[in-house]
Amino acid sequence: MPYFDAASTAPLHPLARQALLSALDDGWADPARLYRDGRKARMLLDAARETIAAELGARPDEVAFTTSGTQANHLAVLGALAGNHRKGRHLVHSAVEHSSVLHAAERHEADGGAVGAVPVDRQGRVSADQFGAALRPDTALAVLQSANHEVGTVQPVAEVAELCAAAGVPLLVDAAQSAGPLPVPAGWSLLTASAHKWGGPGGVGVLAVRKGVRYRSPLPADDRESGRVPGYVNVPAVIAAAVALRAVRQQAAELNRTQHARIERLRAELPALVPDLAVLGDPEHRLPHLLTFSCLYVDGEALLSELDRAGFAVSSGSSCTSSTLTPSHVLAAMGVLTEGNIRVSLPPDCTDADVDLFLRVLPQAVATVRAQLDAPSAGTATAGRLVLDTLGRRCPIPVIELARHLTEVPVGGVIAVLSDDEAARLDIPAWCEMRGQEYLGEEAGPTGVAYLIRRLT
Amino acid sequence: MPYFDAASTAPLHPLARQALLSALDDGWADPARLYRDGRKARMLLDAARETIAAELGARPDEVAFTTSGTQANHLAVLGALAGNHRKGRHLVHSAVEHSSVLHAAERHEADGGAVGAVPVDRQGRVSADQFGAALRPDTALAVLQSANHEVGTVQPVAEVAELCAAAGVPLLVDAAQSAGPLPVPAGWSLLTASAHKWGGPGGVGVLAVRKGVRYRSPLPADDRESGRVPGYVNVPAVIAAAVALRAVRQQAAELNRTQHARIERLRAELPALVPDLAVLGDPEHRLPHLLTFSCLYVDGEALLSELDRAGFAVSSGSSCTSSTLTPSHVLAAMGVLTEGNIRVSLPPDCTDADVDLFLRVLPQAVATVRAQLDAPSAGTATAGRLVLDTLGRRCPIPVIELARHLTEVPVGGVIAVLSDDEAARLDIPAWCEMRGQEYLGEEAGPTGVAYLIRRLT
Repeated sequence: MPYFDAASTAPLHPLARQALLSALDDGWADPARLYRDGRKARMLLDAARETIAAELGARPDEVAFTTSGTQANHLAVLGALAGNHRKGRHLVHSAVEHSSVLHAAERHEADGGAVGAVPVDRQGRVSADQFGAALRPDTALAVLQSANHEVGTVQPVAEVAELCAAAGVPLLVDAAQSAGPLPVPAGWSLLTASAHKWGGPGGVGVLAVRKGVRYRSPLPADDRESGRVPGYVNVPAVIAAAVALRAVRQQAAELNRTQHARIERLRAELPALVPDLAVLGDPEHRLPHLLTFSCLYVDGEALLSELDRAGFAVSSGSSCTSSTLTPSHVLAAMGVLTEGNIRVSLPPDCTDADVDLFLRVLPQAVATVRAQLDAPSAGTATAGRLVLDTLGRRCPIPVIELARHLTEVPVGGVIAVLSDDEAARLDIPAWCEMRGQEYLGEEAGPTGVAYLIRRLT
Repeated sequence: MPYFDAASTAPLHPLARQALLSALDDGWADPARLYRDGRKARMLLDAARETIAAELGARPDEVAFTTSGTQANHLAVLGALAGNHRKGRHLVHSAVEHSSVLHAAERHEADGGAVGAVPVDRQGRVSADQFGAALRPDTALAVLQSANHEVGTVQPVAEVAELCAAAGVPLLVDAAQSAGPLPVPAGWSLLTASAHKWGGPGGVGVLAVRKGVRYRSPLPADDRESGRVPGYVNVPAVIAAAVALRAVRQQAAELNRTQHARIERLRAELPALVPDLAVLGDPEHRLPHLLTFSCLYVDGEALLSELDRAGFAVSSGSSCTSSTLTPSHVLAAMGVLTEGNIRVSLPPDCTDADVDLFLRVLPQAVATVRAQLDAPSAGTATAGRLVLDTLGRRCPIPVIELARHLTEVPVGGVIAVLSDDEAARLDIPAWCEMRGQEYLGEEAGPTGVAYLIRRLT
């Protein structure tokens, strides 16, 4: 079964698996203990820390191991804000950060802090200038991901780091999606990553804090991991994570060329194979192994299930919020359709045959899902508009009804789509933008919101 | 090499090791994903949750997996206090809780909360009546360990739980040291445990919150683990933890009898084999596999090193603070000597031959360490007292000097020990209690504290 969801979790690297097995024998004891097995575990932990630090461009004493990338981001955001609170309580982040950064920001806001989100373009990329302009004298921390987890767009971290340094603002770089395939960009004050994204085991994250950067742990005291991460350190998992990172970095240059070409092929061929398919993300500044596309008139989860039946494991929508049925904040910030999205992220052992097969399977899968759509509902002509009532029906139905009925009004005519699904507020304007129609805005009605569209073509 | 430090971390159970290896193949995918491998990981995670819940006397939906026992305690303490803040901001815990509970309590106090510690007797046991009397109308949470991690004393949890229930105070039971060998005591509102203490892998803790008990996560939001523990769940480790717990509970009744007898033998024979050795902890209410004793005139870490050279892995002093050189808060609360302590905790694969060997090795190890002591310093007779200057010298030197010079004053005479080591404040009164001498109190002097002792025998 071809696994195309490496961005959720990469398969455990074969060398990491071997290392984990050995470490269960050699590094099982408590590294805080002074007897032989404890000292051995400590030695192995120190060696793993040196390896990971070297691969991430950090000093070993700057690196603490967390238990996940999410914990690393929570600690980095709240710890850096606490450490720099004399500078102020303003936090800046891009609008497309991982949900763990946004959740930490919400917590900061609930505690009385101020938060500013820097918008992105339609490819999901921040402008360094806009990011720099968002920095204020009371900004205590700025956060920028190295690459986006949903659409693979690589951010201009080096330029932003220079602006932050000039403004005296520490910069947290969330490198979870790029650490492994890509080198870590220079200029970070704090750096976070997650081992299971680069082929290490679960349960290991990285929080690096540059020497001299102020940090105060938001958690209760503990003397492990330089006082930054409380709790017993899982030494075997850390050893396996280090082995995986070293192996992946050594293979990266060659593998990236292959993966980049495979994604390039998908980018080029998919729109021709599947009608009404739009490829998302920056075509140039992008992760080598990741692609997200959006199929009009399709529910993403239904398409995912159809692909699963055909033997493909892919992600749909926002990777960390797909279980909550809220529209992806990344796609919303990009102003693109938040429905019908599929993220394909190739693991290191992907083959060209897998990609061939995907190109053969996808058109049929999309056709199957589209064929299952309900029959169109009738529109009502009222006050010179065609009114489409989609109340009580979840996206993508409002957009589907809009597309079906568009030609029932003359060019220049207006359609009103009644919807009570929040995602319609994002998706109807995004559809208009894709289709070259004019979005006129919304009107509050007694039973829901009416979204108004003028037919232009 | 006989490993006698199971209370720090138990060796991975052979069945857990097998389960971990299988789970790396079957449960490696993200359990939040909807494709086949994700669903399989979710199914295995659910099954592991059911197993662990059943063994701990909880419902599956009450159990969340943390990444360590320390994290479980931090979350349980701060989450229950936040959830019950309308009741008040008073926290009650025993004086001998694990450092993670004390650190969470310190954080609560720093945030303006009130904290009361219930004292223990010389065996390290709380009195249920005293615990009940410490509950106030504004008490939002009470915390009591099932068994002490340093001396093995089992606490009267069931009695305390009844008093808490009558007072309407939720009770957190920290079962880290007993979950596995012993059943979980009834009556908890919140329950915490740590898998690597029962033979599971590192990286898995348990936080159970009884249905209906108020809880509000102190961490940023996340939709995993019922919103209680943010971050990616390490499914293979959780599966191995469940397998280990089930196996250990099935073997417990028989193993406990054997281990209990071994510890009983050590308790009986050690004081006769080693001069000036005192066995600590409750002789009756105790863990089956754990014993702590204290050797007068010995530095615990030196003895640990000597035992390590002889092939034995044991712990010394407070298990979680031995690296910080602060006296164990557990031993201090018991009023016993905080120096020269050795904790022996037998793993399941311990043999009688290991115990025989330990009984042969220990007397020589203690003798070797005692032989390395410095020559006694001379005392000075001043103002009718014998003054012993131990300024600048770490414990156990002040107690050693006191013992050496005791007979230089007549019965009824007074010795003043000058010391600037904080541990002396605990150890000199504890030594007087052990030796039947009278502790008169302390006097502040220009260069340190003078501790006054009257010779009685």
